[in-house]
Amino acid sequence: MNYIHEITLKVRDYECDLQGIVNNANYQHYLEHARHEFLLSRGISFAELHQQGTDPVVARISMSFKTPLHSRDEFTCKLAVKKEGIKYVFYQDIYRRSDNKLCLKGVVEAVCIVNGRLGTSDALDQLLACD
Amino acid sequence: MNYIHEITLKVRDYECDLQGIVNNANYQHYLEHARHEFLLSRGISFAELHQQGTDPVVARISMSFKTPLHSRDEFTCKLAVKKEGIKYVFYQDIYRRSDNKLCLKGVVEAVCIVNGRLGTSDALDQLLACD
Amino acid sequence: MNYIHEITLKVRDYECDLQGIVNNANYQHYLEHARHEFLLSRGISFAELHQQGTDPVVARISMSFKTPLHSRDEFTCKLAVKKEGIKYVFYQDIYRRSDNKLCLKGVVEAVCIVNGRLGTSDALDQLLACD
Amino acid sequence: MNYIHEITLKVRDYECDLQGIVNNANYQHYLEHARHEFLLSRGISFAELHQQGTDPVVARISMSFKTPLHSRDEFTCKLAVKKEGIKYVFYQDIYRRSDNKLCLKGVVEAVCIVNGRLGTSDALDQLLACD
Repeated sequence: MNYIHEITLKVRDYECDLQGIVNNANYQHYLEHARHEFLLSRGISFAELHQQGTDPVVARISMSFKTPLHSRDEFTCKLAVKKEGIKYVFYQDIYRRSDNKLCLKGVVEAVCIVNGRLGTSDALDQLLACD
Repeated sequence: MNYIHEITLKVRDYECDLQGIVNNANYQHYLEHARHEFLLSRGISFAELHQQGTDPVVARISMSFKTPLHSRDEFTCKLAVKKEGIKYVFYQDIYRRSDNKLCLKGVVEAVCIVNGRLGTSDALDQLLACD
Repeated sequence: MNYIHEITLKVRDYECDLQGIVNNANYQHYLEHARHEFLLSRGISFAELHQQGTDPVVARISMSFKTPLHSRDEFTCKLAVKKEGIKYVFYQDIYRRSDNKLCLKGVVEAVCIVNGRLGTSDALDQLLACD
Repeated sequence: MNYIHEITLKVRDYECDLQGIVNNANYQHYLEHARHEFLLSRGISFAELHQQGTDPVVARISMSFKTPLHSRDEFTCKLAVKKEGIKYVFYQDIYRRSDNKLCLKGVVEAVCIVNGRLGTSDALDQLLACD
């Protein structure tokens, strides 16, 4: 996978559930945060897009959980992206930092809602053309 | 306490942390949801207030944790409210349903931000005048 | 789809993000809660399973987001399940209650970790044999 | 205030609600994470304490919300602590990093539950004796 962005985070205890591992929904939070940080690193703010009437929304997400993260684990979210028709497809994988073990493989398909209708975002398209 | 509203909810497993009890931050969620349901029951929508430029915001919250809630517990959020100067003071207590044991005592002080400045909400004031 | 269980919930404002719609990760919470409620309705407690050394864990999840839920929307989580080899496959769909519109289609593949290794749960298997 | 520990974090978009600011319950998450990081920095693991039968639990929390944090804001959680009788009292304040503005003042009173009863933790007491 040709990753173009990564961020490293650390598990917070409140993200763990009574099994002592990160609750699955938090991985989705990690992936979302990683996508937004990627966009920010390219000069695109999710909040500003929203104020301008453009809302990137996730149409489909699939996640394979390989190795659970525990309290205090550090992990790296790596990201690749390509455009397929009207969709932006993000490939997002999470690795445990201590041993680089794969924790999660995710595929996130996003589309743009522009003023309430399916559309395209020039800002996002330019971003992808550069990479 | 002269409660004027109550809702009953049930603990969801994802709200429990690795101690097997509800993570404290979720009580704040419960209290927020109970306040919004109270407002809705009186015809006031938090989301609509926001769209009209009025944002009730919490200025101060204090919570005493008496008995922890566990997975699957049902509980009732009871609410009283009074106005003190510019503040709306909500007294919000949570009782475990199985034995009516007090789980949490909360006091939430809210103020209204109207178009970006401290202000008052006629809708909220009329509401309190009626009770 | 041959649904065998359903629960109805209501969007809580704190589940909505700055786009004014339910944050995607919360759908995963809804699906998890619906699965646990299904198990409970058949006499199986997720927390008790954990204490007995059996942890059902999600190996893979895919969700298609069809229609966003907004503040105050009521919705129904419907569930079907079948066993495929060692996996329990849950088909979980969410419908908006006001107009029965499909909001989310989810497929959740779970496996059992018994005392730290992949295994099977007699309790879960008997459950599926009955349905 | 004589702060003895601090961590710097960044607002994640999913922590913001439909008002566009950090949902209040997340501040409680920040404070919890900051306390646990403080303990870890002194060699005490919250998860390990739990496994040894000692659970520090919050008995009372009060938070004054001074300035809301927005999407992407960086902020520093500063912490002081003292022992009062059986209680550990944490003074936790959050400052916006860009201008050092006070965002939140918090006081968190914790007690130790040791094997199910109120007790004391030697590890925590030694920690405080040193500071």
